[in-house]
Amino acid sequence: MGEKIKKAVVLLSGGLDSCTCMAVAQEQGYELYPMSFDYSQRHDREVELARQIGEFYKVPDHKIVKIGNFGGSALTDKNIDVPDYSGEEHIPVTYVPARNLLFLSYALGYAEVLKADAIFIGVSSVDYSGYPDCRPEFIEAFQNVADVATVEAILGNKVKIETPLISLTKADTIKLGLRLGAPYQLTTSCYRGGDKACGHCDSCTLRLKGFEAAGFVDPIEYE
Amino acid sequence: MGEKIKKAVVLLSGGLDSCTCMAVAQEQGYELYPMSFDYSQRHDREVELARQIGEFYKVPDHKIVKIGNFGGSALTDKNIDVPDYSGEEHIPVTYVPARNLLFLSYALGYAEVLKADAIFIGVSSVDYSGYPDCRPEFIEAFQNVADVATVEAILGNKVKIETPLISLTKADTIKLGLRLGAPYQLTTSCYRGGDKACGHCDSCTLRLKGFEAAGFVDPIEYE
Repeated sequence: MGEKIKKAVVLLSGGLDSCTCMAVAQEQGYELYPMSFDYSQRHDREVELARQIGEFYKVPDHKIVKIGNFGGSALTDKNIDVPDYSGEEHIPVTYVPARNLLFLSYALGYAEVLKADAIFIGVSSVDYSGYPDCRPEFIEAFQNVADVATVEAILGNKVKIETPLISLTKADTIKLGLRLGAPYQLTTSCYRGGDKACGHCDSCTLRLKGFEAAGFVDPIEYE
Repeated sequence: MGEKIKKAVVLLSGGLDSCTCMAVAQEQGYELYPMSFDYSQRHDREVELARQIGEFYKVPDHKIVKIGNFGGSALTDKNIDVPDYSGEEHIPVTYVPARNLLFLSYALGYAEVLKADAIFIGVSSVDYSGYPDCRPEFIEAFQNVADVATVEAILGNKVKIETPLISLTKADTIKLGLRLGAPYQLTTSCYRGGDKACGHCDSCTLRLKGFEAAGFVDPIEYE
């Protein structure tokens, strides 16, 4: 009798953090079921990269979900320009309302169908650009919802929301990912979504600072 | 100076319960922003009916969101037959994993964009077919998530999840809706989704029993 295979749904954007989550979940012995979203984002190149990361990890299935566009955000509305990094303490225009809530909700439905044990999401409350749905209190509240939302949960098969990066700086995330062999050459973090990363938006800036602080060279190309 | 107009996102399926929610939200003075979902359900005739209910209420906007199909449910998977009503105490095959969670998550994102004050959802913990995400504990847990998930919530503009039918039987819901002039002639509840309601699935059975107990005649056509 073999042991039951542990399954994890991994929210995989094609960015550095979610790629690190794939590495961590694999290290912890999970069978990986990545889930990615195509939401008319500027950086839809990420979806193709996410697919390649899934292939790198030889996943049994990769769920790619097309979801609606809510507007009111530079990441989904092409009429709003993505600004350069400002370092200011305010919610950036790149904020997408309730995005992580939506992603986790889809992941929970998928986890129930798979009878998965965990959902991995690469949020960090350290380098989080001011998004409210990256904070530990949000994750805890969502865990409480997950514990009552599904038939499987009521039967005692609760799904654990795993946030291995929640207290890590970008530099610590990069060190962790590189130690576990995460394929960072297949990731991009740029909000502008060109063939090469811009190097100047919030996300590129956090990434480059992270590599610098970690003492590694970013393997992707910049403009 | 006029008072601020209160806005409500109303989850509107084209069924009897959500139609009643439209009537209740209007009665309470809200400007109505219905949100409907097209999720490859068998009963996609509901989406057209939802649109007509929105027109009946002269809504400023009606958001119709196309969402992915997760399988594992008779409501989204055409290879599973919808069974007749059995009255048994188990989770029916018509259960869609995390459906209300997904709907509420979309509604919360939309509410943030609109700066809406409330989200109405027509769940009942009395006549609820055994769905875990129709129970008060689920709604309370979701309220707690909503209170920490968005920028608006953090700024103090929390969105209230309103469940006016939560403790009503189907008969009480029908009495309430008819008193408020809800256009039940534009609703359908049938899981099988034909031009006329089948009268035999779980949902038709609950509806017909409800009208009978309320002492009214259902205005829609049955096979």
